[in-house]
This record gives sequence, structure tokens and C-alpha cells, in this order.
Amino acid sequence: MTLASSGGARRPRQRRSAITRDRVAQVALGLFNAQGYTPVTTNAIAEACGISTGSLYYHFRHREDVLWYLFQRVEARVRGLFIDSPFKDTGLALLRRQLVAVAEILTEYRFFFPDQTAILRRDERVAAAFLGLQTDVVGAMRGQLAGWLRPAHQGDRLVPPDAEGLARALWLMMTNWVTYLHSRGESVETAAVAGAVPVALALLDPYIPL
Amino acid sequence: MTLASSGGARRPRQRRSAITRDRVAQVALGLFNAQGYTPVTTNAIAEACGISTGSLYYHFRHREDVLWYLFQRVEARVRGLFIDSPFKDTGLALLRRQLVAVAEILTEYRFFFPDQTAILRRDERVAAAFLGLQTDVVGAMRGQLAGWLRPAHQGDRLVPPDAEGLARALWLMMTNWVTYLHSRGESVETAAVAGAVPVALALLDPYIPL
Repeated sequence: MTLASSGGARRPRQRRSAITRDRVAQVALGLFNAQGYTPVTTNAIAEACGISTGSLYYHFRHREDVLWYLFQRVEARVRGLFIDSPFKDTGLALLRRQLVAVAEILTEYRFFFPDQTAILRRDERVAAAFLGLQTDVVGAMRGQLAGWLRPAHQGDRLVPPDAEGLARALWLMMTNWVTYLHSRGESVETAAVAGAVPVALALLDPYIPL
Repeated sequence: MTLASSGGARRPRQRRSAITRDRVAQVALGLFNAQGYTPVTTNAIAEACGISTGSLYYHFRHREDVLWYLFQRVEARVRGLFIDSPFKDTGLALLRRQLVAVAEILTEYRFFFPDQTAILRRDERVAAAFLGLQTDVVGAMRGQLAGWLRPAHQGDRLVPPDAEGLARALWLMMTNWVTYLHSRGESVETAAVAGAVPVALALLDPYIPL
């Protein structure tokens, strides 16, 4: 009787907590995107959620825990695109799908790359995970590109392409596109960030089979 | 007599001051590169120069004045490369010369781009000048690339290249190459930064006449 009723009481609370934890993270993400990560305090997150600091602590002990929660969500999505890719396409069509999805993620988490160095300098856990993700995504892109580069490409060109370099360049121009818009005071919306996709495709088009 | 001797006394001091102002900026640059811009205080700069804070104030009132001095030096060099270019080359040879020189500047001032957002957020004077320089360099590159792109390039490709996009991509991958090395804990030396040059050239090679 006691066991059954305590079990019955715990279930709804756990479900409610799970929803609230995600809502807190979403509200915090909105603040990070609007103000930048650094100036947003734990108190400001609680206030924006309309809850007390004590209630917030039930879900996240620090702002860093919110960042970690958000980072893990992004990591799962990005690994899904490049490492366990669900796409059946190949060549330029595959790259287009991947980059369109990346542009969406970059827009949704647009606070991150403009402050990449400052964030990673202060957070060893996210820094280590970020480095692992960056290495794996660039490695996956390098593998994809290496499969497309043919000896013909080497002969054609004054400057022979190299899969590692092309993969790095792709990573750098995609991840810093938001910083570029930001520096010009342009609004960072999906359409503007997606502007990076045709540019990346035009750069790689000469090296990719149809 | 008084005028002559005061004039005689001022000259050497002015010359000594000019040398010292430049030396202070050089020592500060070394600190910024080693520790990042944000943590370096005015006191730390004076100490590294082996002078008192009072003596430092004679040359630069704040750390921000040192940054401004350094920025103006960089701006003059970069404008010299892209806007009043001394090079007689054209096509890929011109681009190679420009990018090799850019890689040297990026190495020498390697503190800047990893902390670009944090630096520009706090310093309106440098932010305005940076935006002007970025706009002018991307504009100059766009002009150079537009002169090279031919209708044939449009027909050849599934994804037609666009000079504005290619110029932005070039800016982003060059300026963020240091951040990439930095994030991987690799040493930021001239040879490593110059690794960006063949990658940029390989990306643009298909669009540039020999």
C-alpha cells in the first residue's frame, strides 16, 4: 500500500520535471542567443522562467550545466548527420542535405560560435566534447570528400585539392558564417545562415561527382 | 639660448618616446598572443616592459589604446595588400601573394580572431574600424573574383559560383584558421597558419584563370 502510493506519487513528478528541465534549457537558449552566453547569469535564467533560483537548482546547478545539456543535444544531432547519416543521397545532393541541416542547427544555437573561444576557455567539459565533435565531423567530411576526389582532379589543377584541407575549410566557413552576419549587425535568421550553403556547394562542386 | 636648449632637449626625448611607444605595443602584443587579450591588464603590460604604470600612461592611457595602435598598424598593412596592392601579378599568382602575406599578419596578431567577438563587443572604436576593414577587403576580393568568373563557369557547374559568396568564404576560412589550430591545442606558427593558403587556392583554382 505504502509502496504502491509512493510509486504512484513519484511518476507524475518525474514526468513534470523532465518537461520543465527541457523548458528551462529552451528559455536559457533564448537568453544566450539574445544577449550572448557570458552575460547571462543563473538568476536571469530563473527569472526568465518565472521560477525561484531554488527551483532552478533542482534542474540545473549552474549555467554550465545548462550549456552541457544543450551541447549534448547538438552533438547528437550533428553526429546523426555526418557519422550515422540517415540520408540515401550521394555526392552534391548528400552534401546539400547535410549543410542545410547544419545551417538550421547553427541558427538555433547561434550564440555558440561567435563566443566559441571564450566559452571553451572556461568550460573544460564542453571544450573536450567540442574538440571530439569537431575532429569527428571534419574526419567524416574528409572521408566523404576523399571518396569523391579523383586523380583527374589532381592533373586538372595548378593547386591540387586535398580532402583534409577542403573538410577544414568547409567547417570553418559554415561555423563562422553566423559570426560574420553578427559582426555586420545583420539578423541571424534561418534564411541568412542558409546563405552559406550555396557558397559551400559552389566551392566544392568542381570536386564532387553529380 | 633658452629656446635653443629646450629645443635641443626635446628632440632626443621625442625620439626616445617614439621608440618606446612602439616597444610597449610590441611587448603588449606578445602578452596578448600568449595569454589572450582579455586577461592582460595595463599593470601586466607595464611590468613586462619593466616600467612603472605612470611611465606606461605616458605612452598609452589604457589597454584599449594599445589595441587601437596595433589595429591601425594591421589595417594599413591589410589595405596595402588588397586595396592599394603593390603586386604586378594577376590571377592565382596574385591571390597566392596576398594570402601568404595575410597568413603572416594572422600569425603575428594571432590573439585577435579567436577572441574577435569579445574584443569587438567591448571596444566600439575598434569594432567600427574592423567592420570597415572587413567590408573593404571582402569587397576588394569580390571585385577581383568577379573579374575572373566567366559565363563558362556558370554553365559548367550545378551550383553557379557567386563572387560575393566566394569572397566571404575566403575571408572566413583565412581569418578563422588560427582559431581552428588554437582549438586543437596546435602551435600557431607561421608554417601552420600558412597551411590555409594552399587550401584557399585549391578551392578557388577552378574559378581563376592561370
